[in-house]
Amino acid sequence: MKVFEIDFFIDEPFTLESGEILPSLELRCSIYGQLNADKSNANLVFHALTGSSKIGDWWKGLIGDGKTLDTSKNAFVCVNYIGSCYGSTSARSMKNRRKKQKELPVITTRDIVRSNALLFEYMGIKKFKSVIGGSVGGMLALQLVADFPGIADECVAIGATPLSSMALALNHIQRQALALGDLGIARQIAMLSYKSPENFDLRFGRRPNRNGENPSKKHEHRFDIGGYLDHQAKIFDERFEIESYRIITRAMDLFDLTNEEIERIQAKVTLVGISSDWLFPAKDVEKLAARFNVNGVKTDYLEIVSDDGHDAFLSDVQETSAVLKQVFEKRQRPRLVLCAA
Amino acid sequence: MKVFEIDFFIDEPFTLESGEILPSLELRCSIYGQLNADKSNANLVFHALTGSSKIGDWWKGLIGDGKTLDTSKNAFVCVNYIGSCYGSTSARSMKNRRKKQKELPVITTRDIVRSNALLFEYMGIKKFKSVIGGSVGGMLALQLVADFPGIADECVAIGATPLSSMALALNHIQRQALALGDLGIARQIAMLSYKSPENFDLRFGRRPNRNGENPSKKHEHRFDIGGYLDHQAKIFDERFEIESYRIITRAMDLFDLTNEEIERIQAKVTLVGISSDWLFPAKDVEKLAARFNVNGVKTDYLEIVSDDGHDAFLSDVQETSAVLKQVFEKRQRPRLVLCAA
Repeated sequence: MKVFEIDFFIDEPFTLESGEILPSLELRCSIYGQLNADKSNANLVFHALTGSSKIGDWWKGLIGDGKTLDTSKNAFVCVNYIGSCYGSTSARSMKNRRKKQKELPVITTRDIVRSNALLFEYMGIKKFKSVIGGSVGGMLALQLVADFPGIADECVAIGATPLSSMALALNHIQRQALALGDLGIARQIAMLSYKSPENFDLRFGRRPNRNGENPSKKHEHRFDIGGYLDHQAKIFDERFEIESYRIITRAMDLFDLTNEEIERIQAKVTLVGISSDWLFPAKDVEKLAARFNVNGVKTDYLEIVSDDGHDAFLSDVQETSAVLKQVFEKRQRPRLVLCAA
Repeated sequence: MKVFEIDFFIDEPFTLESGEILPSLELRCSIYGQLNADKSNANLVFHALTGSSKIGDWWKGLIGDGKTLDTSKNAFVCVNYIGSCYGSTSARSMKNRRKKQKELPVITTRDIVRSNALLFEYMGIKKFKSVIGGSVGGMLALQLVADFPGIADECVAIGATPLSSMALALNHIQRQALALGDLGIARQIAMLSYKSPENFDLRFGRRPNRNGENPSKKHEHRFDIGGYLDHQAKIFDERFEIESYRIITRAMDLFDLTNEEIERIQAKVTLVGISSDWLFPAKDVEKLAARFNVNGVKTDYLEIVSDDGHDAFLSDVQETSAVLKQVFEKRQRPRLVLCAA
């Protein structure tokens, strides 16, 4: 499998939905597989909140020669989106460029897909065979096909809907922790929302921390789940930026397609729920699919049946792969309405 | 309705389950209604994590003359338990008493009910007609009838089971916030676990904060749910102690009756689940009831059907009252297995 990595610098002001202006754009792009001359084998993947453009880092089991995302025939483009800290315009890069600018303004999913469209134009890609994403990546996939109706034949969004009030609450509290300078607590809260109670009970239960701590003796001694969460906080703190986290969670908050946006969509849409997801409950995904159909967009609903919670689109490779294969093989088959169980 | 408030000071060392020793005990006790001479009309209520002995403050709709907890015929005793900050031994009172002691040791539900039993002995109460509690109060009700088998005829525990791994995780993260000196964030996380997604969607949805903030314009502008949570953090920070919060959440963590403890129970037990509770899921409460029955304790399972989440035992007075009435009227009726819907 060939992997290309390209850094783009667009030296023109970019006006955001809020009216604020970014003086320029940096965009890091990865391409897995070889784009053919007429770009007719191009597919697009959007990464999630804390991912990067390196699809192989987080969908290792799904992408490669002969795999579900088959790089022997197709090319898969992924752009680190603005706000993130893996190569594209972020608070850190802005600070380096313009000393006075302390933080990035509010960035929306509309801003992100518009910035990416500039790149696709430059690359000469007029249409993708498919655009795929999970979580924030799913939001961006939907936003793209709404705002650029001719840009893809097929759109697959996994575990993505406008945030419920509970999900807005989770993001709000995470940003409270960021305001105290603590990215780790934000990550820990997020981890709860990515996993399911069943998953935690199976993996950690009520066992004391595996290093021998005894929570009935000392306040600082933890249960196993506490040790796990502290470890997650530590490794995340080392790899991610507070400002990026603040910006992307706000973009998540604001994602909410209007009926007018939905009506514009030309791609065939598949919305995928995850049975044990409580951040983006499967019933909410199913409702959104119904709303798409009511608004004239032919939309299938599929389900990843897994105890892994929201994270299943990353952790449960077998189920996610099965669902994506169903979508890609759809044209030869009668319209699907069943789940992947 | 008569209300008595009594402060007890027991000037003897009290050895905790951990082996640590408290030099003395302070216990604040409230009594709603008039105890008769032989104490045969005594009932016991345990308060929840952030409550006090003043039952009328948090079960206003349930307690009073002619109400479900009828103070014209019965007396209802409630003791602020050790660790809490509403009159009983707490980190703050310990600091005043012994300058060197910086914090309270780990306190368990077994410690709490044993400290309360000292008080009941002093008051001359050998047996309660019933012992009732919700959440941590439910844990304490169960711990009491397990450790003091003859102490009550009837035990009602609402929304109380040993914590699942997810619930342990929620407490762990809250204590991470306490370690940063921020009680408000801990409260906000707890609020999520006390409410249901349905309740939040209905009350706050995706509306911007009611003071006119616009979250699509400024990072510091909030959705309505954010404004609500910030308000909750503020008022909680004014009324509660960080150390008490740390101590009681650990007592919650550690509650986990052994089969031997369950077998000792003589009281008739009713476990009440709350349909929309995700902190103590109704199915977990039902499983615990099955476990009690397997261990020879006659146990009914009832359900509060409410969209209010875990908090329903406080907020949904009508449903909670209906369930409690079913329990109290049980003797005249065939054994109940149905929910209160």
